[in-house]
Order: sequence, then structure tokens, then C-alpha cells
Amino acid sequence: MDLEKLFKPKSIAVVGISKKNPLSPGRIVLLKNQYEMNVKVYGIYPTGGEIEGIKLYERLERLPEIPDLLIIAVGPDDTIEYIQECADLGIPSSVIIGGGFAEIGGKGKKRQEKLEKIAFENDIAVLGPNCLGVYAPPIVDTIFLPTERITRPPKGSVALISQSGGVLVDQFFVKFNERNIGVSTAVSIGNRAVVDEVMLLEYFSRVDPETSNIAFYLEGFKEGRARKFLQLAKESEDTVIVFFGGKTREGKIATQSHTASLAGDYKIIYDALRQHYIIQPHSERELLTCLKVYDVLSHRRNPFGDNVITFGDVAIVSVSGGHAVLASDILKKYGLNAVRFSQQEKRKLKNLMNPIAAEIASFNNPIDLTGSVLDTDIENIIRYLSDIERIECIILLLLPYPPNISFQIGRRIANIIASKNKPVVCFVPYVPKYSLIIESLELANIPVFHSIKESVQAVSALKERTRVDNLKLKNIFWE
Amino acid sequence: MDLEKLFKPKSIAVVGISKKNPLSPGRIVLLKNQYEMNVKVYGIYPTGGEIEGIKLYERLERLPEIPDLLIIAVGPDDTIEYIQECADLGIPSSVIIGGGFAEIGGKGKKRQEKLEKIAFENDIAVLGPNCLGVYAPPIVDTIFLPTERITRPPKGSVALISQSGGVLVDQFFVKFNERNIGVSTAVSIGNRAVVDEVMLLEYFSRVDPETSNIAFYLEGFKEGRARKFLQLAKESEDTVIVFFGGKTREGKIATQSHTASLAGDYKIIYDALRQHYIIQPHSERELLTCLKVYDVLSHRRNPFGDNVITFGDVAIVSVSGGHAVLASDILKKYGLNAVRFSQQEKRKLKNLMNPIAAEIASFNNPIDLTGSVLDTDIENIIRYLSDIERIECIILLLLPYPPNISFQIGRRIANIIASKNKPVVCFVPYVPKYSLIIESLELANIPVFHSIKESVQAVSALKERTRVDNLKLKNIFWE
Repeated sequence: MDLEKLFKPKSIAVVGISKKNPLSPGRIVLLKNQYEMNVKVYGIYPTGGEIEGIKLYERLERLPEIPDLLIIAVGPDDTIEYIQECADLGIPSSVIIGGGFAEIGGKGKKRQEKLEKIAFENDIAVLGPNCLGVYAPPIVDTIFLPTERITRPPKGSVALISQSGGVLVDQFFVKFNERNIGVSTAVSIGNRAVVDEVMLLEYFSRVDPETSNIAFYLEGFKEGRARKFLQLAKESEDTVIVFFGGKTREGKIATQSHTASLAGDYKIIYDALRQHYIIQPHSERELLTCLKVYDVLSHRRNPFGDNVITFGDVAIVSVSGGHAVLASDILKKYGLNAVRFSQQEKRKLKNLMNPIAAEIASFNNPIDLTGSVLDTDIENIIRYLSDIERIECIILLLLPYPPNISFQIGRRIANIIASKNKPVVCFVPYVPKYSLIIESLELANIPVFHSIKESVQAVSALKERTRVDNLKLKNIFWE
Repeated sequence: MDLEKLFKPKSIAVVGISKKNPLSPGRIVLLKNQYEMNVKVYGIYPTGGEIEGIKLYERLERLPEIPDLLIIAVGPDDTIEYIQECADLGIPSSVIIGGGFAEIGGKGKKRQEKLEKIAFENDIAVLGPNCLGVYAPPIVDTIFLPTERITRPPKGSVALISQSGGVLVDQFFVKFNERNIGVSTAVSIGNRAVVDEVMLLEYFSRVDPETSNIAFYLEGFKEGRARKFLQLAKESEDTVIVFFGGKTREGKIATQSHTASLAGDYKIIYDALRQHYIIQPHSERELLTCLKVYDVLSHRRNPFGDNVITFGDVAIVSVSGGHAVLASDILKKYGLNAVRFSQQEKRKLKNLMNPIAAEIASFNNPIDLTGSVLDTDIENIIRYLSDIERIECIILLLLPYPPNISFQIGRRIANIIASKNKPVVCFVPYVPKYSLIIESLELANIPVFHSIKESVQAVSALKERTRVDNLKLKNIFWE
């Protein structure tokens, strides 16, 4: 099944447009693609006419061309008729927004079987039903929520596939945007009657050149598809990340009424995924942290260099003792290791600082530079630590409160990191007045987090990717 | 020792002002109190003169009155001389900003002993050394960081005591502000040579009428003071919350060089605290969530009524199936329970909704109202659930993305909650364009969280407070 027409259509048609209700899903999709996206848009309306400047065609066969993608926003029985029309006319792909299929059981299940039969027999890439569909910037957007109501993430390296549309546009889009994580394509799979996680993994791994990280939010694998998924993940050159909702009994009850899937025994799934080089964050925040770091590593201007290897040996640099304590706590929880400095290194570190701060600073690991720190102290320390080979990564807890830290500090640090290629992750509090510092780091692709925990998680994510990449390399070697 | 002069001084004097360096700690403190706070301010400078419009006195004894509080921002040896002057002149309290005491060991330790001797013999309430001191709005602020660099929390019910100044102004002030949690007084205790956690617990429990929640961020108890602390906590009518940094070995190493304390064996401490009715969050985020909820409960206009009792029986209402799944997962982790609805209740719930949404919505617990939801559906469901007695708390996952949800929704829900007095905690995504909805809930003192996890933590916090309050009641009964 060719998914390229689904994600990179040259033309789309929309059915299920209301002339009366400006908030009907079909109408919203029609208008947002016409006015916000880069695709040729056709609207279908039984009596023709026009809507907000867009000419409407009475039937699909009246269109001047066969569209690449049909977006269906009508009731379930009519939906099946439209899929049959796709088959008859040779429309290669479709997004079905509406529900009334397997998720309601009984007759809905029958409907879905009918739908699947037509799609598979005619090789139509059907996404859904019961989904938000595709957001593939800058080409197409089938999300039926008004754009001004939601938040869109920037363009980047992550293909994001979610079994829940709500989680996609809220948990992910909002937080991707906050964290500046870029998506290549975002997909809401709904009931995944036809296009499922396996096909998507295959497409994004093998076909799509824009994707280098493939992230799934799933409540369970589609029945009978887990084995194939694992095999593809193991072979993928991209980084594959899977996060499961519905891990507990309560979660499972919710899942079953939500998208009619079976969550399975989580522990067994976890081990199997790990053996197939799939990265599995433990929480949604951890997932976001992983993706932020991997998106940075996929960037053409990756400040950490091409070959980031981190087994978890870290130096922590803080301007606040309390933050250093918190970071040390979390480091331990994540199984990471604060390297020990020799007496000579400690002396050297002390000598690099202004005399007032040098007296009160602490040069264990974590290093506490204290509130008497100057910009140049931070520069000197980062530069020195970057050259110590056994330090694989530096966590910089950068509080801009000490009076002598200037607004140049972000740029200054960015320059050092770019020249040293040592991974440095920063914590800077999320306060609007410090956006100048945050932006100067982010512009240089240095990941900035707004909690201490996330900055530690970022190192853990680097470590996990090192593990997976090494296994993949070994695999190639033995083949 | 009387701490009232420390936290509510009528006049303060500042020593350690630089005429050359506008960023010297003493000068920053002098100016911010003069121009931002409500206290009479005197500056001390050896040759007198004036600075930015403030007359400077040559020595303490030249002041026209004995100040209530002396803020000391000079080197450690001069500091001790100033404390002796406090004794000689009868100045009842002091904040020592600078370091060079027990935290550096050796001669620093000796200095601190000398300091303690003078303070205890003369009954001077000394805060510090090595601290940021006091932020007691609107009266006094001894934090030597320029106000425009930091964030100040709103006024409220929480006395916040931190062993780390950096954690206080960053982790807490920033996040209190984001979450709209109010402080009565914030205290950075530094080395706590004299004024320590025990005196502060006593003062805020027994003396300060503005405080009803007392929160500590500690890295360990002061030696020999744990027993007294626990006893006071057990007797306190306020809610006492303790969060420990430095729980792990790595954390402890950081702690010892930071404020020269011993973190102790965490597990033993945990159990002892629990037996003494102290609430112990497991993470910093959980701490913030607790404080937000308790601050709301302490408010004169508390929308949940006077007697909030929650053993953890919850109803979850969502407009997104995926969010419902995530919330169920987390609910389980926190040992909370989604109540089961009877068939009759499910029918009733279905009948309360608009016919389109009713067909596709799911009425298990979690309830998934779907993207076809209207404002009135949410109102009806919340109103109905509020009347079911066995539901102790409602978690509302309110995504404003569905096109028919209006900007009125916050106010509408707030009105129902205020009339029903059933605890409802809301999740609304943190997106600037939805601040109208968030504010309308917050204005009615309904706690809004921006992650699903925090909204579940909030219920767990209510449950924990129920446990503690019941124990306290029992205690009174048996006495």
C-alpha cells in the first residue's frame, strides 16, 4: 500500500461539508486546507454551488482530476459508499474522520469489516475511521478542529503517530511547540482499520526522507501485528520510540471503550520492545524529553557532533547549591553517574574562577559556582570540562538570577559548545524575561529544559540511544 | 526567641553597601526595601553620605532609632562584630547574607560557634548565615537578587521555608507564580545557626495568623532538632508539609558541601514524619500540587466547602478518550479509585447529553464526552455527578479544542462547583489563548492544572490531608 499519496497529496477532495454550520468538521477541513496549506482542494456538495469562495462539485466523478486523497466526514454508512467510490474511481487514499465502526461494537464492527474488505482489495490507503487524520506540513492538514483553537508544532525530524487524536493535538502538539520539537508528519490512526502502526513504521523508516525519529503513542498493538512491528523496528535506521497509554487495569478499561484495542500484558511487551531496539520512555514527559534530544541530534547543525556516545558519565554545573542537590538526586534515580574529579582537577577548576566566587564555590561533582559567579567563570568551566574525555555530557543548571550574569550568557555558552562538540544540556527557568538567554541557546540547537528532571532525563535519553545504536551496529557487523 | 521582628519589622538597617558597585548585595537590599517594600529603611556606611537618594549613617548607634532588623552583607569576621553590636544596642533580629561559616568547615565552623553564642546569650533572632533571608510581603525583602531578575509569588496562606536560597527563588517562586500559589512568608534559612526549622514551625503554627500551610524544603534536620520538630508538627493546627532534597547517596555528597547538614537515612525519616502527621510529597511537582490545593482550601472563598473529605473515590470526565486513558493510568499509580457507575447511572448520564455526542460518548468511569460535546453537556454531567454522594471528587479534563466549546465554559463550570461544594480539579492545557477559561476557574478558586498527572496528584493531596486531619481530630478527642 502506497502511503505517499496520503501524506504528500497533490490534490484532496472533502465530502461532508455543511453549508449551514461553519463548525462542521468537513467544512473546517475544506477551509483550512484551502487557505492554510499547500494542496489543491476540491469540495463535494450534492447540489454544488460554492462556500466561502470555494467551488463545490456535485459528485466525485465530476472533479476535473482524480484527487490523491479523499477526506470523508459523513456518517458511517455513507462512508462505506464513498470508499467504494474511491475503489471505482481509483482514488488511492482516504482519511475517515467519523466514528460508528469497531469502537461501538456490534453493527459498527460489521461496518468496519466491510470497509477493510474494499480497502484491501483495491489497495486504498485508508486512515481511520474515528481519527483526526494527518498533519503533514506544509502540504495537508485533515484535523477537523479549527486551527486557531489548537497549537501546531514546528517542522522537524519526528514522525508522530498517535492512537488518540486528543492526545496528539493536546499532549503532543502543545508540548512540542513549547519545547520546540519538530514533526515531519503527525498521524492520528483512530481504529486503524487499514493503515496501522506497522505500515506507518515501514513508510517512515524506508520511504520518508524527512523523518529520522519515529514516535508512537499506542494503547496496544493491533492484533496479530506486534511481531512484524518488532521486526521492522529492529531493522530501522531511524530511532523508534514507543510510549504506551493504558498500562494498568483501569487504563485498560478506558482503552477498550476508547479505540477497541487490547492493551496486553505490559511487562511482556516492555521486554520484547527493548530487545528490538525500541526506546520506551516511562512517562509522557520523558517521551517529550527524548524527542527533543533526538530531534536536535537529527538536525543538520547538531552542536554535539556526529557521533554522540553517552554511557551516563556526567558533570553537573550549577549556580545554586540546592539545584545541584536536586539534580544529583535525580541523576541517581536514572542510573547515571557523576564522575569524580581528582584533587588536581578541583584545583584547576577553582583557579578558573573569579577570586570571590572561587572561595565559596564547591568543586565536587556537582559543581556549585554560587551566586557570585560571572559569565566568564561559566565559560571557563564549561570549556575546561569539555576537554576532559571521561565526561560524556555536561548538565548546566543556569539560573540567571545572580546579578553579574549577563544576557550574553546564552550566546557565550552556545559558542563554546559548538566549538567543542561535547553534549551539554541546559536547565534555564521558564520565565518570559529570560527568553533571550533561552533563545540564544536554542538557536544553536542546544536543548534547553525548564525543569531539572527533564535535563537529567535528556542525558538518560542520550544513553539509551547509544545503547540502541550500538546494538544496531553490532547487528550489521554480524549479518 | 521572638521572630515577629524578623518577619514584620517596622524598621531595618543594612550594612555592607558598596558605593561603587550597584550590584553589591547590600546595596540591592537597601534599595529594594526603600523603593518596593513597606518598612522604614536605614543604610550604614563608614563615611556617611547618601546613595540613590537614601541618607547613610556612619554607625549603627547614630541611627535615630533602634531598628527591628539588621541585614548584614559583609565578610564573615565583620559579621560577628555586627552581631555583637546587635547585642550591645538591643537590635532583636538579624539576617546574615554572606558565607564563610560552617559550610566551609575549619575556621568557618569556629566563627559560627562564636556567632551562635552571642545570638543565644542575647536572644537575637539571627537568620543564616549564608542565606537569602526573608521575603515577607508587603513588608520586607532581604533577597539580594535584583527584583527584576526574579519572580515573586502572590500573597497567600503558605509559609515556605527552604534550606536552599536558589531552590526558593527559582523552583518555588517561579512555579508558585505560574500556579498562582500564595505565600504568607518565604524564608531561606542557610546554615540555620540560630533560627532553625523548629523555631520557624513554632512561629508559623502558633503566632502568625496569615499562615495555614507550612512547607519545608530541607536537605536534612538540624542535628538534635528532629524530635522537637516532629512533636510540634503533630500539635500544629496548620498543615505541615516537608520535602527532602538529598535523598540519595549522590544527593548527600552534594548536600554536605552545600549547607553542611546530614541527610540521614531517608526511609526512617519518612516513616517518622508520616506518624507525626506531616505530609511528604514524593517529588517537587507533587509538592507544588499539594500546596496549590491546600492554599485553595485555606481561602476564605473555598469553593469546595469547609469540610473536604476525600478517601480517593473519583469520577473522571474528559472530552478526549486518550486523556481519559492517561488519567486512569495515573489514578491507579496514586492508589485512587474510579467509582463504578450503575447501569441506571450510565443511562442517566447518556440522557443528559446532546444526541450526537450521546451516541459516541462512553459512560464508564472515565467518562469520554468526545469532540462533539457542547458546553451544556459538561454542565449537566458535572451537576449530576456532584449529587452522587459516593463520588468524593471530580477530575475534569477540559480540552477546549472541540469547536462547540465556548469561552464561557470556565465561568459556567465555576458556577456549578461553587453551588455544589463538591471538589472538582481541572486540567486545561497551558496555552495562552485559553487563559480566559483558566482565569475564570481560578478566579473562583477552582484549582486548574496544566498536566493530567498534576490533576490526579491534586486528588491524592486531598486524600492525604483527609488522613492527617482525621488523625489530628482523633488526637484531640482522646486527650
